[in-house]
Amino acid sequence: MNATAEAGKDRVIVGVDIGGTKMMATVFNDAFEKVGSCRKKSRAKNGGKSENRVVKVIKEALESAGSPAVAGIGVGSPGPLDPDTGVIIDTPNLGWKDFPLGDVLQDAFGAPVVVDNDVNVGTYGEWRCTKLCAHKHVLGVFPGTGIGGGIIIDGKILHGFSGAAGEVGHMTVMPDGPYCGCGKRGCLEAVASRIAIAKEVAALAAREDAPYIMEQCGADITAIRSGVLARAIDAGETMVESVVRRAAYFIGMGVGNLINVLSPEAVVLGGGLVEAMEDLMMEEILAGVEAHAMPFLRDNVRITAAQLGDDAVVMGAARLIAEHIGYGNTSD
Amino acid sequence: MNATAEAGKDRVIVGVDIGGTKMMATVFNDAFEKVGSCRKKSRAKNGGKSENRVVKVIKEALESAGSPAVAGIGVGSPGPLDPDTGVIIDTPNLGWKDFPLGDVLQDAFGAPVVVDNDVNVGTYGEWRCTKLCAHKHVLGVFPGTGIGGGIIIDGKILHGFSGAAGEVGHMTVMPDGPYCGCGKRGCLEAVASRIAIAKEVAALAAREDAPYIMEQCGADITAIRSGVLARAIDAGETMVESVVRRAAYFIGMGVGNLINVLSPEAVVLGGGLVEAMEDLMMEEILAGVEAHAMPFLRDNVRITAAQLGDDAVVMGAARLIAEHIGYGNTSD
Repeated sequence: MNATAEAGKDRVIVGVDIGGTKMMATVFNDAFEKVGSCRKKSRAKNGGKSENRVVKVIKEALESAGSPAVAGIGVGSPGPLDPDTGVIIDTPNLGWKDFPLGDVLQDAFGAPVVVDNDVNVGTYGEWRCTKLCAHKHVLGVFPGTGIGGGIIIDGKILHGFSGAAGEVGHMTVMPDGPYCGCGKRGCLEAVASRIAIAKEVAALAAREDAPYIMEQCGADITAIRSGVLARAIDAGETMVESVVRRAAYFIGMGVGNLINVLSPEAVVLGGGLVEAMEDLMMEEILAGVEAHAMPFLRDNVRITAAQLGDDAVVMGAARLIAEHIGYGNTSD
Repeated sequence: MNATAEAGKDRVIVGVDIGGTKMMATVFNDAFEKVGSCRKKSRAKNGGKSENRVVKVIKEALESAGSPAVAGIGVGSPGPLDPDTGVIIDTPNLGWKDFPLGDVLQDAFGAPVVVDNDVNVGTYGEWRCTKLCAHKHVLGVFPGTGIGGGIIIDGKILHGFSGAAGEVGHMTVMPDGPYCGCGKRGCLEAVASRIAIAKEVAALAAREDAPYIMEQCGADITAIRSGVLARAIDAGETMVESVVRRAAYFIGMGVGNLINVLSPEAVVLGGGLVEAMEDLMMEEILAGVEAHAMPFLRDNVRITAAQLGDDAVVMGAARLIAEHIGYGNTSD
């Protein structure tokens, strides 16, 4: 908390990050300083509705800021969703199907609400709240459990016809490759996500080629998270390192493909894998880009690791609603 | 020629298509009716400069329209080029390197000039001059000797940071796949262009598995053009058909990737291969899209073969300059 809003005098904005496992709301004043925050697990122990949980998280964040009036609320939520209407189309984790989240929050807080895909909003935050804001065309790629993407063209999030553009993890990069969670084969996500890495590493562990992993997680791929991969590599498990490097190189190939298609000026890479192993991941991603992007398209493209960590979505969501309602000094 | 412009009274616009082998200029009145045209080979027999050739083609087109005054000139040219300045960065076929084509034509005709990539301009023509103009997000993919792409987002050509976005033929779709003309391996173009098809078909011919091809072209891959492929398939060469179908399926996979990333509302497919074998190509392209685009992104996307043939670039170029200078009824 960097400053305090005077309740009833200065209205605030709220950025909300709705994840499958946790929810976070952060309150900002018109200088975009944090003045309050609240974070909870997404599912209540008593099995209450997710929407009540969101309202509660926002209310507690506002209370922690001294209960100021609300000028607007920005929300990043898992998709697919309709950013024009704020309707969540389908998020089984939270029990939402054709759910009018935007309207529900607008009614609860009496303030305008924008809702967008969490990866779009995270990319927007990394763009608007870091040095990348000097650029107009920005691509965000976030490898973790899946591989999400956000595309900013001429300063605007690309939604496309469906509202759900940016499914970069489902580009086919290996015809007849491994199965993806989407049911297709050979998606970038099926080759290079944390799950794709964990699958290979679990096989190494089962074959006694990754004793640190075996000791920490067994051969259960759901237990092999980014942090344990990083520690296994630090512990000298070279085959684990090789699996991670190969995945990162594929991510670089995917980024190279997107540079060829979109010609961004900057690319920001975040997500669990990059956060846990930034140097190693960025090294191989850059090698993949170097090999797969056309030279005249990759020249002078700024490729960087994400800076905001867990705050990217709440900060991006706050900027989105601020720009929507003309709040604060949005040219910052 | 649908109408006639009165010289000196109604100013006209000119659309110019500069290709590696031919150049075409078409003159339009403010109802976007053709009032004159000229077409020549790109290289003069006497080895004169390509820029003089372009000026000559435009002059003769204007003469054929009764020498009216010129309101503006739109040009589609092979890239890479800078659409902001009208400078051609490098087109070895025409002997141009950092060549200010826009300025040269502006000086020669005393009228404003826009220059853009020929594939972008062709996509723009197919969008603005057909029923596709009802849509805001349109993707054009043109498989021929190479595979070019044009991307329209919110009614504007996507140029990106470099000015050269849309290199869809250089997405890597087969890691460690065949070499591409760009020096990389496994680009869509290396797997599915007319050259990629011709290479496989030449091997069939050399092995006596494609006697029609052998009789018509020998095993010279430069001689195996789209038309002869179509005739070989009509003559019952099933292995040739299988090679073409496989390439078309890969193009569909590439289109599917782009649907996942861009979420267009319409996709238009043109180029030599589609023109020569529309039914067969579209069938396999649609199968590739079906298998590789996410269902919620491909639903309701209109996927269609190009309608304008050789006129796409001159018509698109005319629309571009008309919109740039506010000429005619551009909302048509």
